[in-house]
Amino acid sequence: MRVYLDNNATTMVDPKVFKAMEPFFVQMYGNPNSLHQFGSETHPALRCAMDQLYKGINAKDEDDIIITSCATESINWVIKGVYHDHILNGEKDHIITTEVEHPAVIAACKQLEALGAKVTYLPVNEKGIIQAHTLRDFITDKTALVSVMWANNETGMLFPMEEIGEICKEHGVLFHSDATQAIGKIPVDVQAIHIDFMSFSAHKFHGPKGVGGLYIKDSQPLTSLLHGGEHMGGRRSGTLNVPGIVGMGMAMQIAVENLDFEKNNVRKLRDKLEDAILEIPDTFVVGTKEERTPNTILVSVKGIEGEAMLWDLNKNGIAASTGSACASEDLESNPVMEAIGAEADLAHTALRLSLSRFTTEDEIDYTIEVLKQAVQRLRAISSTYSYAPSWHKSGL
Amino acid sequence: MRVYLDNNATTMVDPKVFKAMEPFFVQMYGNPNSLHQFGSETHPALRCAMDQLYKGINAKDEDDIIITSCATESINWVIKGVYHDHILNGEKDHIITTEVEHPAVIAACKQLEALGAKVTYLPVNEKGIIQAHTLRDFITDKTALVSVMWANNETGMLFPMEEIGEICKEHGVLFHSDATQAIGKIPVDVQAIHIDFMSFSAHKFHGPKGVGGLYIKDSQPLTSLLHGGEHMGGRRSGTLNVPGIVGMGMAMQIAVENLDFEKNNVRKLRDKLEDAILEIPDTFVVGTKEERTPNTILVSVKGIEGEAMLWDLNKNGIAASTGSACASEDLESNPVMEAIGAEADLAHTALRLSLSRFTTEDEIDYTIEVLKQAVQRLRAISSTYSYAPSWHKSGL
Repeated sequence: MRVYLDNNATTMVDPKVFKAMEPFFVQMYGNPNSLHQFGSETHPALRCAMDQLYKGINAKDEDDIIITSCATESINWVIKGVYHDHILNGEKDHIITTEVEHPAVIAACKQLEALGAKVTYLPVNEKGIIQAHTLRDFITDKTALVSVMWANNETGMLFPMEEIGEICKEHGVLFHSDATQAIGKIPVDVQAIHIDFMSFSAHKFHGPKGVGGLYIKDSQPLTSLLHGGEHMGGRRSGTLNVPGIVGMGMAMQIAVENLDFEKNNVRKLRDKLEDAILEIPDTFVVGTKEERTPNTILVSVKGIEGEAMLWDLNKNGIAASTGSACASEDLESNPVMEAIGAEADLAHTALRLSLSRFTTEDEIDYTIEVLKQAVQRLRAISSTYSYAPSWHKSGL
Repeated sequence: MRVYLDNNATTMVDPKVFKAMEPFFVQMYGNPNSLHQFGSETHPALRCAMDQLYKGINAKDEDDIIITSCATESINWVIKGVYHDHILNGEKDHIITTEVEHPAVIAACKQLEALGAKVTYLPVNEKGIIQAHTLRDFITDKTALVSVMWANNETGMLFPMEEIGEICKEHGVLFHSDATQAIGKIPVDVQAIHIDFMSFSAHKFHGPKGVGGLYIKDSQPLTSLLHGGEHMGGRRSGTLNVPGIVGMGMAMQIAVENLDFEKNNVRKLRDKLEDAILEIPDTFVVGTKEERTPNTILVSVKGIEGEAMLWDLNKNGIAASTGSACASEDLESNPVMEAIGAEADLAHTALRLSLSRFTTEDEIDYTIEVLKQAVQRLRAISSTYSYAPSWHKSGL
C-alpha cells in the first residue's frame, strides 16, 4: 500500500485541476498579452481563474492578487519590497517576524540584516506560536513590517491573525502573512483580518507546482522584485503561466468548497491517527487538536530518531517527514521543536504526518499498524530509549 | 485556417514535451527534496532533464544551471545580484547593455540607476545590433557587468557574442547574455564563447510556460534573488517545479536535435514568406537573412499601421505581432524600429512574423495570399500612403 502523509510538503494535483490545465499546453498556447486570437482565447479561462482566487480569499475588486512562481517568490518580494520602499530611504529600520517562519522568510530577513536592517524574531511558546501581546513589546515607530505565518508548516499551529492585525493597524505597521499552510485547510478571509500582504503557493492545495500568488490590499504600492514588461499591471513581469494560473484558480475553488470536508472528515482521520499514536507510551504531539490545521500532526516518539522512523515507514510505502522539505537537504533537528524548547534529543525525534482530502480511512488504519510495529522494532534497538530520563506526555 | 506566426512571443508545447511532463502532476507528485519514495521517484526524470539542459548548451559539470520561473527572473537575478555583489559595496559602479534589450533587462537597469548605478545603453546600427568595438569605448575598470542579448526578439538579429565575450574577458568584466530568442533557433554553446551568465525561458522553445534557467559559469558566486530553503544548492529557493523542469529538459533536447531543421527547413519557409513580402512595393525587412535567427522577419509595410495589419491577419486566422508581447499592453511604436533610426511613421508600421518547426508550407502560402490582399485593402484606405515621400527598399 502506498500512503502519502506529507501533504504539508506538497500535494497531488487534483485530477480536476489537471483537466482544467490540460488544454493550455498544446492547444491554447498563445501569449495572453498578444493581440491575436491565439492570445485572446486564453482570456476567459484566465478571468475565471482570477475570479476563483479573489473569491477564495474574499479579496475586493480594489485589491491585487499578483501571480508569482511560488510563495517563496511572494515572500521575498514583500520583505525586500518593503525594505526598498521604507527602510532603504531611512524612513524606518525594523522588521518583526517569528523564529518559526518558513526558511524563505528567515533567509530574506537575514539578507536584510546583512544590509543593515534590524530584525526581531519573536520567540514562540511551548505550543510553537507567538502570543499576540508580545508583539507590543517589540513594535516601534521605526517598524516597517510585521511578517507572521498564518499556520505553521511543521505543527499546523494557527497563529493569532486577528490580534496581530489589530496591533499592526494601531501602530500603522504593514502586516504580511505567509498563508501557504492555511489556504485549503481553514477559511482564509482577507477582509476579516487587517492584513496588507499575503503569500501562497498552489502546490500546497492540490494545484500545480511553479505557481503562487501575492495578495496586496487596495493594490497599494510595493516595489517589484521582477522588473520587465507590463504584465500584471507592471507589478510582476514574465510571460503569464496560463496553465499554472488556470490550475491554481481551479485548485482554490475546489479547496474552498472542501473546507467543511477538511474540518470534519480530514480532521476525523487525523484525530484517529493521533489518538492511536498517543496510546503508544512516551509520545507527544505539539499543540491541541483544536488549535491546529485539521490535517497536521507533529509527533515526538521518544528514543527514535525521526529519520529512522521515516525509513521504516517508507519501506512500508508510507511517506512522512521529519520537518519542512524546504530545508530537508540537511538532516538537522526540527527547528520548531528547538524553538519550543524541546531538549535536543527530542528535537531529533520529530515526525510530521500531514493528511489531505484524498487520504482514506484504510490508509490511516494501515499507517497505525505500521507505526506501532516500527516503534516496537526501533525502540528495541534504540541506544537512547532505555536510559532516557523519565518524561511525561503531559509535560509539554 | 489557423496560422501561428508569433513564435517569438511564445510557442506551442511540443506534444512530446507534454507527454514527458504529464506523469508529474497527478501520479508522481512528491517533493524531490523529501526523503521518501514519493520524493525520490521523481529523481531519475529530474536528473535526465538536467542532463538534457547541460548537453543542450554544452555546459560543463563545474557549471551551474539553476532553474528559475522564466528568463525575466533569471535576468533580474543576474543584474541585481551583480549590483549587490560588486556595485553596492563600492567596488564598481557601472553596467553596460544595449538600447534594444528585452524589457526585463532595461527595467532592471533603470531600477539600479535609481539606486545610483551608472548604466550605458549602447546604440545599435541600422541593422539593430551593436558593433562589438563600440563596447571598447564605454568599458572602464569600474564596469561590473555587460549584458547583451544573443538574438533580438523583434528582428531576430544575432549579436556578435564571440567578440563581446573577448572584450569582457580582456577587461575582466562579467558578461551576461539573454539567450531567450537564441536557444532552439541557432547553436548555443557556452564553451565556445567567454560568457559568465546566460538566461533562457522554456516556453520560447516549445517547453512549458513558468520555467526558465540561469547558466552560471564555474558555479561562480552570485547573491540569490529568492532566498529560502536549500533548493538548488541554496541558490534559488522554492519547491522544484518537477513537471516544468522535466518539460524544459525534453524541450531542450528536441530543440537541439532540430537545429538543422531550423537552419534548413524553417529558414526556407521564412525566406519564401520574406521574398513574397519584399515583392510588394515599399516594404523593407530589418537585416539580411543570414544575420538573423532562421524563423524571424521584422517587416515594415509603408503606409499601414502595424495594428491594422494585425487585425486583418487575425480576422483570417493568422497570428503575428507588432513587436514584443512582453510590452504589448500599450500600442506604442516598435522600439527596435525607433532604435535603428526609422522615421516615426515607419516605426508604427512594424510587423513581426516568427515561424517554428511546426509551421507548414501550406500555412505560409496562405499567409502570403492574405498578406497581399490586406496590403492592397489597407493601402487603398491609408491616409499616409498616397502622400508619403518617396522611399526605397535599398534605403535602409
